[in-house]
Amino acid sequence: MPFNIVGVGPGDSELITVKAARLIGEADVIITPVKKEGSKESTALNIVKTYIKNMELVDYFYFPMVANFAEDSSIKELFKSHGDTINNYLIEGKKVVFITLGDPSVYSTFSYVAPYIDNIEYTPGITSFLNGAALGKIPLCIGEESLCIINMTDSEENLRAAFKLHKNIVVMKVSSNQKLLKTILEEENRSGIFMSNIGMENETVSSDITVLDKKLPYFTIGIIK
Amino acid sequence: MPFNIVGVGPGDSELITVKAARLIGEADVIITPVKKEGSKESTALNIVKTYIKNMELVDYFYFPMVANFAEDSSIKELFKSHGDTINNYLIEGKKVVFITLGDPSVYSTFSYVAPYIDNIEYTPGITSFLNGAALGKIPLCIGEESLCIINMTDSEENLRAAFKLHKNIVVMKVSSNQKLLKTILEEENRSGIFMSNIGMENETVSSDITVLDKKLPYFTIGIIK
Repeated sequence: MPFNIVGVGPGDSELITVKAARLIGEADVIITPVKKEGSKESTALNIVKTYIKNMELVDYFYFPMVANFAEDSSIKELFKSHGDTINNYLIEGKKVVFITLGDPSVYSTFSYVAPYIDNIEYTPGITSFLNGAALGKIPLCIGEESLCIINMTDSEENLRAAFKLHKNIVVMKVSSNQKLLKTILEEENRSGIFMSNIGMENETVSSDITVLDKKLPYFTIGIIK
Repeated sequence: MPFNIVGVGPGDSELITVKAARLIGEADVIITPVKKEGSKESTALNIVKTYIKNMELVDYFYFPMVANFAEDSSIKELFKSHGDTINNYLIEGKKVVFITLGDPSVYSTFSYVAPYIDNIEYTPGITSFLNGAALGKIPLCIGEESLCIINMTDSEENLRAAFKLHKNIVVMKVSSNQKLLKTILEEENRSGIFMSNIGMENETVSSDITVLDKKLPYFTIGIIK
């Protein structure tokens, strides 16, 4: 029996796929990531609660928020132990679903656990930038255009090269370098839409570049045309 | 009452969102694009048939397959008339849903009709590349990495620049220039997964670069690492 990693979309319980809802409803174990050890607070879980028949089926896996997973050996150990726990559930014949925000192939921390599990099925989900484009009512790309998704944590050289090359850019982690983003947008005479906490209660949307002057929330993306 | 443009995902009826299924079920009119005038053949419609209460509610809009919509005035007229038809439905108080393959913000021809309609709500959908990553069981991007989506119809200069800049690349419309793609991959020593007809019955997946030597189907994408 395969293990299912399921994208649960950007925040709205209706923006998960019919397949994801079915797999969650059929699961014997639903694993959700939590940011603090021992915590039961999970954004992914809040999204899918309505599809879970029994909350006692939920298992909470600790995923610390650190800058570089790949270089930290104690975190590698933690991820291997998560893999072991999943493999044990599978040996017991349980249907296991791991839920992840957005889509499992786009910036999911699950990617670090995947190498420890043999048989994985992926169910795609709506990413924050697809939902952002829907809310902003703007196309991300049309015709023959390219689209670039880039993090403001990337090097200034890479960011500048991306802005030179691409007409359509989704900027993730805007809050990590708002000043540089504003400088590049002004120099390149580009405009955009800035969205914070997409799909959540405190969602904000602005096309005014001066929002970059005040500190924005962690979950802020920009769609630049 | 707003008009809804709804992404119906890559091909599997279960890979549409719960919201899309609900909106289609509640609609008074479901508009689907067709490639030939007078045809009732529609991939998008096939995906969502199971959610439609009455097939007589379906209206078929002709969307010709041409290289450059923006420069063709007769096509602009056609799109304006599609907008007029939609606006008339809305004046009659009808709930109208327009279905589009994948996601409405990513390479959707609906983007050319949007300017003619006042009040549009967008419902995002799973794109072919998200589904491709799920099938290929590979992350599109992790950590701080960027992701580029580019068409093989783009200029050789832009394509080469994108391959220099980005570790993760989704190549759309592979079949339009397979030879150039193979040359670049060999020169840059890059590997990838090539997928044709994703989510459809005749789906194929290969990580062998020599598949680029024989003519591939129109719906072929590459995920390059």
